[in-house]
Amino acid sequence: MQRVTIGDVIREHRRSYPDKTAVVDGDLRLTWPEFDDRVNRLAHALAAQGVANGHRVLWLGQTSARVFELLGACAKLGAMVCPVNWRMSAHEMAFVIDDFTPTVVIWQDEEIGEVVRAAREISDGGAVWWQHDLPGADNVDTVLAAQPATDIWGPVDADLPLLVIYTAAIDGHPNGSMITQHNLVCMGIESSYLNSTTSNSVFLNSGPLFHIGNFQWEAMAAFVQGATNVFVRRADADELLDIVTKEKVTAAFLMPPTIIQMKEKYDPARHDLTSLKAGVYGQLWGEGLVGSEQALWGLFPGGFGQTEVTGLAIFNGHGGHGTGNSGRPGPFSRVRILDDDWNELGVGEVGEIAIGGEIVHAGYWNRPETNARRMRDGWWRTTDLGRREADGTIEFVGTSTRMIKSAAENIFPKEVEVCLEAHPAVREAALIGTPDERFVQSVLAVVVLEPGATVTEDELITHCKQRIASYKKPKSVVFVDEIPRNGEDKDYSALDERFGGGGYPGGDVIRV
Amino acid sequence: MQRVTIGDVIREHRRSYPDKTAVVDGDLRLTWPEFDDRVNRLAHALAAQGVANGHRVLWLGQTSARVFELLGACAKLGAMVCPVNWRMSAHEMAFVIDDFTPTVVIWQDEEIGEVVRAAREISDGGAVWWQHDLPGADNVDTVLAAQPATDIWGPVDADLPLLVIYTAAIDGHPNGSMITQHNLVCMGIESSYLNSTTSNSVFLNSGPLFHIGNFQWEAMAAFVQGATNVFVRRADADELLDIVTKEKVTAAFLMPPTIIQMKEKYDPARHDLTSLKAGVYGQLWGEGLVGSEQALWGLFPGGFGQTEVTGLAIFNGHGGHGTGNSGRPGPFSRVRILDDDWNELGVGEVGEIAIGGEIVHAGYWNRPETNARRMRDGWWRTTDLGRREADGTIEFVGTSTRMIKSAAENIFPKEVEVCLEAHPAVREAALIGTPDERFVQSVLAVVVLEPGATVTEDELITHCKQRIASYKKPKSVVFVDEIPRNGEDKDYSALDERFGGGGYPGGDVIRV
Repeated sequence: MQRVTIGDVIREHRRSYPDKTAVVDGDLRLTWPEFDDRVNRLAHALAAQGVANGHRVLWLGQTSARVFELLGACAKLGAMVCPVNWRMSAHEMAFVIDDFTPTVVIWQDEEIGEVVRAAREISDGGAVWWQHDLPGADNVDTVLAAQPATDIWGPVDADLPLLVIYTAAIDGHPNGSMITQHNLVCMGIESSYLNSTTSNSVFLNSGPLFHIGNFQWEAMAAFVQGATNVFVRRADADELLDIVTKEKVTAAFLMPPTIIQMKEKYDPARHDLTSLKAGVYGQLWGEGLVGSEQALWGLFPGGFGQTEVTGLAIFNGHGGHGTGNSGRPGPFSRVRILDDDWNELGVGEVGEIAIGGEIVHAGYWNRPETNARRMRDGWWRTTDLGRREADGTIEFVGTSTRMIKSAAENIFPKEVEVCLEAHPAVREAALIGTPDERFVQSVLAVVVLEPGATVTEDELITHCKQRIASYKKPKSVVFVDEIPRNGEDKDYSALDERFGGGGYPGGDVIRV
Repeated sequence: MQRVTIGDVIREHRRSYPDKTAVVDGDLRLTWPEFDDRVNRLAHALAAQGVANGHRVLWLGQTSARVFELLGACAKLGAMVCPVNWRMSAHEMAFVIDDFTPTVVIWQDEEIGEVVRAAREISDGGAVWWQHDLPGADNVDTVLAAQPATDIWGPVDADLPLLVIYTAAIDGHPNGSMITQHNLVCMGIESSYLNSTTSNSVFLNSGPLFHIGNFQWEAMAAFVQGATNVFVRRADADELLDIVTKEKVTAAFLMPPTIIQMKEKYDPARHDLTSLKAGVYGQLWGEGLVGSEQALWGLFPGGFGQTEVTGLAIFNGHGGHGTGNSGRPGPFSRVRILDDDWNELGVGEVGEIAIGGEIVHAGYWNRPETNARRMRDGWWRTTDLGRREADGTIEFVGTSTRMIKSAAENIFPKEVEVCLEAHPAVREAALIGTPDERFVQSVLAVVVLEPGATVTEDELITHCKQRIASYKKPKSVVFVDEIPRNGEDKDYSALDERFGGGGYPGGDVIRV
């Protein structure tokens, strides 16, 4: 059995779609054969640095067609590529560099060059560093120009990891989820089905590439169907309006705050968004602004998933209750509700959601103990809680680890609390989320000071901003005498009640 | 990586769709849990006869839900099931029994009992025989009643063959194409995408189960999506009209002759076909009779494929020229045009179509030499001829082996010629197809008699009917002095020209 790899997908499209545009990124516009040529040059360049099966390449940049070239090149070599969260602090970035031990790092100067340089300084080093937006001998385009465009043809196992995404630091440090080539092909096909993606689709990669979401809606679908992927460095409303108009974009990864900005800046004399399917959050557009074409699943309001299962594994589109948190697995995924001993629970009982099937990742990079604990016979324990309903649907009832949501970002209290508690004036901190119309939730820190210590709200926020990604910092801080307790544990429910916490993605009540 | 098996699909649906109807067959109506229970009983019954990984089970019957129960049971055991062409003669059937060496045979008395009994008589024996429509201890329902409904849970490789379909006797005897569990899952998902099949679909299995076509439109799609499969023993226009009306069927496997009969018998007072999507051959229905709902690919007029690649591998829906013989591969399939030495040919050159990817079968049962010759590194040589066009599409230009088409059936001249030449009065025979409005082609035998011998057209037709499947017999016979030659070979083109041959599925001109 010859499995289709991501390299095979590109090899096939260069033959099947010789005239079709594969990627657009600013002035860069490549047909599938031209894209494959660049992928091949990059593969040769990486191979010359020793990159081979199982090796790692790091992308320290924003959203870019370069990431898809890296996906293609690493796929053909059997290597992995990790697009790092460019909003990370230098210390966070250095942690990933040292954890992932890449052979090659490709980085971006614009907007994040300073942080990247600081991260490089802190980290252990050993990698070859190429940049992609400055002149010089270390510019990746200079490196590529010296390489042949011939295909690197060799046997590559489709079950090798390809895309690595560092997920949130639930237990204090982030973990790199290793998503295989087969995972991505299967997810792309399921996404094509749900989104009615065809080779005529034009997807705008306006979401971050360090999250699985943008890949699922609908970058991988467009990729496997031989369609066009357009890239913008980051979500800027003016630029998005221009690109949708110019490229006749059919789908884009847009979160509510961006849609609201785009509506505010929309000018009928200059913009035409009617090529756009309504898609996720489509109701926010209102009447007439975007196209009326519907995907198979209409507005496709979500389901349950996580990076470790290549995005959604349970789809509201397969029959949920419209809550956005319920649904059924697609044909590539399987679901069980388990107790702590891996026994399946009965209908109506709340337990841990475990996912099996062709979309389960290959585990976390460099975390053998965690993998051994959470993976068994191909089943992955999500740490999230769910219940099988009488009609067979799965209802996601919450995270067993408490999580706050800011737009598309997940924030795990523990990490921010550790950061706050590292400040000399802070004895203890507890993080809650308060409902926010625009960003889902807003981060509130409840802080107990050391006896006699003083610190301002602003000082603590700045302290966090310097150490962790900016979106994780508290938006406000309240000072209290003590954190209420539930036995040993911080009593978050009491804090929610006292300070207006709520709007948690798993429902307001975390049922553990 | 845990691949999804056909057993897993059923295990999942019993949880996700506990109230949904899985199969309907006459009075039999089973929800997914009830269907899984029967599958489990059957698996236990087969296991008790020693059926295990790699073993074989034969179905000698017409279209029936029983075949899907056998698919499920054999899937859970890692065994294979072959639904035999019930239109075969006793000698042909005996050949398959002896070639396939099944551990268990399940047979049907109605309509074909006499042929089956004769085949059993002729064949070598050794199998356990159960029948499914007569009373008695050997009735399969009697056997099942004694078995538990508990799941047979064991590791089964999704790359094991499950469905075996004997393809036409190109080289004198039929070959059993071994289609794996993974092949079927992938084909079902691609079919769901093209046909917009959802869990609310109701597919009518009105085609033969010894062909891949009925599985592709859309039995496997309905199966993997948790939808309903309805079965009718054979295509009878009156019965089909009643069932579509009663079950609100959304799609059915209907060939042109059946659609024409259904239109003739359609009675607006009794029949309502508006649940039916137009589907393949949808234009034959005319206005208003069936529903206006369109699948993603509209009427989806075809492409290129064969049993050995689990049906279509090149889809007109992925961008063909509307000829029904061109298109592009879907994401699960790969295509190369090869010369005899496995080198890829250039654009515009005619060569043998080779298919790779997740839909390539595991080879023919018991034909190691043929498999070695036609399969390499997961690529399968189809023996069919095609050309890569400048726009990247593949155009199927014909079979390298001459083939005649009668409705959905493929007839290979060699086999019928051998049968005719076995008659003592016949020195030589050549078979051609003449265009037929209703059945695509009609079979004409051109015969040279032995000196002094006499035989009538009717006698020769009866001779064939007794030895090979009835649909393969010549519809008419013409007697000539000699068959024209092209070197050593029979000159079929000259015969086509002289006797009005044409309408071959690969185009009138076979370009070898």
